[in-house]
Amino acid sequence: MNNIDLSLYLVTDNSDDEEKFLKTIEEAINGGVTVVQIREKTADTLDFYNLALKVKEITTKYNVPLIINDRVDVALAVDADGVHVGQSDMPCDITRELIGENKILGVSAATIDEAKKAEKDGADYIGTGAVFPTSTKDDAPSITKKDLKNIVDSINIPVVAIGGINIENANELKNTGISGLSVVSAIMSADNPKKASEKLLNIFNS
Amino acid sequence: MNNIDLSLYLVTDNSDDEEKFLKTIEEAINGGVTVVQIREKTADTLDFYNLALKVKEITTKYNVPLIINDRVDVALAVDADGVHVGQSDMPCDITRELIGENKILGVSAATIDEAKKAEKDGADYIGTGAVFPTSTKDDAPSITKKDLKNIVDSINIPVVAIGGINIENANELKNTGISGLSVVSAIMSADNPKKASEKLLNIFNS
Ligand code: NI
Repeated sequence: MNNIDLSLYLVTDNSDDEEKFLKTIEEAINGGVTVVQIREKTADTLDFYNLALKVKEITTKYNVPLIINDRVDVALAVDADGVHVGQSDMPCDITRELIGENKILGVSAATIDEAKKAEKDGADYIGTGAVFPTSTKDDAPSITKKDLKNIVDSINIPVVAIGGINIENANELKNTGISGLSVVSAIMSADNPKKASEKLLNIFNS
Repeated sequence: MNNIDLSLYLVTDNSDDEEKFLKTIEEAINGGVTVVQIREKTADTLDFYNLALKVKEITTKYNVPLIINDRVDVALAVDADGVHVGQSDMPCDITRELIGENKILGVSAATIDEAKKAEKDGADYIGTGAVFPTSTKDDAPSITKKDLKNIVDSINIPVVAIGGINIENANELKNTGISGLSVVSAIMSADNPKKASEKLLNIFNS
């Protein structure tokens, strides 16, 4: 099992304005983000590869792990720290074979069964949600705080909550046993990504 | 360098009707197709992976190489025979590192410079086109028969021609020095994929 500080887990969104995108990631890390996942569902492979190389320069500089969403090939090509797969991506056990034991493997799971299977198949952590309404992932299933706690209690690997988390609602996730908050727009769309990250991390740690 | 019989190189299209899709591939192989490349630009990774496993059962049965378009991760996951990358996909040299020396690596090249670079970067063969008008790849550059011959003459690895090739026009490619015909709809949309493949292979070999 690979250890990873999941406390404040940034998942990126649209990178069309690349300069702003990279600046936001750097500011977020300066504000306390502990993991960065890049998620690019529409980019050509070359674009995703090139973007991943640029993000990796930043994450390496600050010694923060870089996780690639879905694309094991991109993760291997840029030697990222890990991969995050959903239930429509490469199966967890096959992904583990492809990336080896030393890279981080995260899996999105919306049910206890999915979470248990991911743990059995080699996942290092689970991402689960959406815990709040969100427009980022249209297809994300919604779960209650009770569901979240039940998933946390059903497995021995850490769980991050995702979906609509922001500085207004993050404190509602206390006492669920999660190991971190995963956010997209609360940081990526913040006027001040550094401040937003500091506040979110404070809420999680308080 | 990996040797591969490129004479009749089938690139698949839409697999929505999976049963028909798989049947067409099998009939095409029975008609003489020497290589099968699956190309899925929109599928979820899991769908592409599952489809590739099914196609691999067929290509293995008939001992025909299976090439995966673009997705090195899918190629590695199903242990396909090779990968084909375009100029917007993973760079050729990085792809070679990821797949190792023993898997086939094809590269789409539309110019002599692209072809030479691909050869230098570890490609086993080049795909070039479009040699005829086509609606399959909207973004495919068009080349003349003279261009095609010049590309063939500029490199030492084999070249397959692609783009709008069918039983009416395939004979126009004689004397260009190509090592094979790459076709999509001339086989995938044929009423009789086996007969279409036989005819195309006859034209190429005559
Ligand atoms: Ni592409």
